[in-house]
Amino acid sequence: MSSDAITPRTATLAERLIAQYFAANKDQLVVGGIRVDELAKAYGTPLFAYDAGILRATYQALAHALDGFAEIYFSIKANPNPNVAQVFVDQGAGIEIASIGEFEKAKRAGCKPSHMLFAGPAKGEHELRQTLSEDLGEVHLESFEEIEHVAGLARELKRTCPVAVRVNPMAAAQGGAMRMGGKAAAFGFDEEILPEVVAEIKRHNGLKLSGVHMFAGTQILDADVLLTQWVHGLKIASAVAEMAGHALETIDLGGGLGVPYFEGDRTLNLASIRIGVDALKAQKEADAGIRGAHVIVEPGRFLTASSGVYLMQVRVAKSSREERFVICDGGMHHHLAASGNLGQVIKRDFPIVAANKLTQATLGPATIAGPLCTPLDTVGRKTQMPQMKAGDLVAILQSGAYGLSASPTGFLSQAVAKEVLIDDGKHCQI
Amino acid sequence: MSSDAITPRTATLAERLIAQYFAANKDQLVVGGIRVDELAKAYGTPLFAYDAGILRATYQALAHALDGFAEIYFSIKANPNPNVAQVFVDQGAGIEIASIGEFEKAKRAGCKPSHMLFAGPAKGEHELRQTLSEDLGEVHLESFEEIEHVAGLARELKRTCPVAVRVNPMAAAQGGAMRMGGKAAAFGFDEEILPEVVAEIKRHNGLKLSGVHMFAGTQILDADVLLTQWVHGLKIASAVAEMAGHALETIDLGGGLGVPYFEGDRTLNLASIRIGVDALKAQKEADAGIRGAHVIVEPGRFLTASSGVYLMQVRVAKSSREERFVICDGGMHHHLAASGNLGQVIKRDFPIVAANKLTQATLGPATIAGPLCTPLDTVGRKTQMPQMKAGDLVAILQSGAYGLSASPTGFLSQAVAKEVLIDDGKHCQI
Repeated sequence: MSSDAITPRTATLAERLIAQYFAANKDQLVVGGIRVDELAKAYGTPLFAYDAGILRATYQALAHALDGFAEIYFSIKANPNPNVAQVFVDQGAGIEIASIGEFEKAKRAGCKPSHMLFAGPAKGEHELRQTLSEDLGEVHLESFEEIEHVAGLARELKRTCPVAVRVNPMAAAQGGAMRMGGKAAAFGFDEEILPEVVAEIKRHNGLKLSGVHMFAGTQILDADVLLTQWVHGLKIASAVAEMAGHALETIDLGGGLGVPYFEGDRTLNLASIRIGVDALKAQKEADAGIRGAHVIVEPGRFLTASSGVYLMQVRVAKSSREERFVICDGGMHHHLAASGNLGQVIKRDFPIVAANKLTQATLGPATIAGPLCTPLDTVGRKTQMPQMKAGDLVAILQSGAYGLSASPTGFLSQAVAKEVLIDDGKHCQI
Repeated sequence: MSSDAITPRTATLAERLIAQYFAANKDQLVVGGIRVDELAKAYGTPLFAYDAGILRATYQALAHALDGFAEIYFSIKANPNPNVAQVFVDQGAGIEIASIGEFEKAKRAGCKPSHMLFAGPAKGEHELRQTLSEDLGEVHLESFEEIEHVAGLARELKRTCPVAVRVNPMAAAQGGAMRMGGKAAAFGFDEEILPEVVAEIKRHNGLKLSGVHMFAGTQILDADVLLTQWVHGLKIASAVAEMAGHALETIDLGGGLGVPYFEGDRTLNLASIRIGVDALKAQKEADAGIRGAHVIVEPGRFLTASSGVYLMQVRVAKSSREERFVICDGGMHHHLAASGNLGQVIKRDFPIVAANKLTQATLGPATIAGPLCTPLDTVGRKTQMPQMKAGDLVAILQSGAYGLSASPTGFLSQAVAKEVLIDDGKHCQI
């Protein structure tokens, strides 16, 4: 071998995602069997494309891992497009909502209100009235003000309202990074004051304390962290059942299941969850207070992120003071998270590829920017890219969650990106 | 005096802004003569209220400081509500646009296309065609691709298109912090390659090189920094005139005029600008290549930020593990910048007040959160607040720029905030 021998290298996250979820047709990225150049031609760019096949496969993989231990409620905030949510509803999922707007979208997705949960730290009275008058499955109470509100609405609507207590667990129960519980929070009630909360709920005839909801973490990639939280969640549920003096009907263990976004991120190991749920089933079965309860997990990001590709077209390729810039027709106004402005402390690249030049060698690092008149509109920093020119396509992977709906679509009065659902080789705007 | 004597303290930024722009009626913040509780009652919350009187006064103060040296173009991206822009158009302002959407809004504000400038690093061909076919004042060219595009459109439309070169100045010209020029950027052409750029433009009969546009900084609070940039801007303009072989008609010195957002921020000193422009006038007058040019400054933020108040109502006041939380009906989905997620490296509070309890003593620090199911939805961190309860009003000042239009209004499918313009004691939704 000469000294030119190629050094083996680890596959990038983008390469692994393409291998797992997509395909390549020569140089073109293929989503749900459709080449991205065909999608760009059919709908124009920028564009979010979601593959229903990936949505279903992800749902089924999680259901398999849960093995009957828990039902899945889709946290619709991750992707509120009703056609996306409908894929999960058709699979039997419930929906977790956090606003009256999400309630309406969940209904449009075919979900019955009785198959919905409503959480949120400061629900509006009109939101509670509307959802409760339409037979909402369960309200997750998060403040004493809300206990009063819902009790008042129960009297007004002359019905008994099924409620759950949202719990902010103590720190001891947490493992791993990126947890939200264990500290002071706007969400739910601190675990320490549950006796007082349960007593307050029981004071009201119109409230039926049917369950608990754990204030979980977000973007958890370690199955053991998740399982540890769930063990603790069942313990809290058991304690609440004892405080309530009756068995619980629901135990919402929260969401928090993560997906890899950045180089080095691991993938949540569903096989470990599949193994871990056996012990959870036994824990639940052994406890009369929770034995009959429906356990719920409510992922959002995990179910939708990988299905989505944000597709942009290059408008300008230029150099400025030795640095290379690839400026596209899409950017932060459609994909705030990819620009690093949705809570990220360190701005890192989402998996980004030259979607019509997949096999071409990199020319070195480039800044991938959008069309807005602000340096914030940058989605790639020192991103390895082949030679690019106007008309080429750039795709941001892992874009199916917290994409368009979490972005400032009115910024600089740009057009809103289209969303396309691809299913079984067919595609349409949604 | 006893040891209880109150220590004199410096006024907070919020107090200074209220003294300068607003008023207090007992405990109530007053905007444009209207108490915030009246606004909340009339329109509901959350709500952006803009005072046209402040818009006009700010415009006039800047015009006075510029003393005929430069015309003002409103950078409509800062607040694209046509009714807001119209206030400036009525004062004689032009409008700087960055998209076809902004073009339409500027027209609705009563601005003629001939009184508009179009800048942006990756304008779409349809955007260029539409604006040029409606007699756009000037296109600011930012890439070689764009030179080709506009030249092609000039042929297609059988007209001569007035164009300016957007310049990314060299570092030597920059002073102070928060500058954007001097380094590699997606915007404009590096100063170093201007001869090549001017030659390329001159190759096309359909392009008329009428001006230059300086790629300025943002949020500049130091008048000397601004004046230094302007001096250099005139020098660049002079050089471009020489390269072009003819006098220039326009010199766009950019925007970048800042406003104080955080404690310790100073206020841009317009008196210093008033003094400094005399030398700039002399510099311009002495140079035949630029003597006849219209000088333009194009602030956005500076003209609108202080006029706007974002008003929220408290829904929940709670404690969690010794920390106090005030949870409101508004938050990051309407005001991303105030949540610290619009490019800020360090999250600091905008000026926030208990708008119906202005004179009440603080009870200590509180977290001011919004209704979204995410810890990102936080607009106040350790914010001094009096005792607060559901129904109280919280106002975020300096909210008239990069507010609603720069925010993820679809996030969690919450309702979009209303916008209200108050003018001469009258108010209406806009």
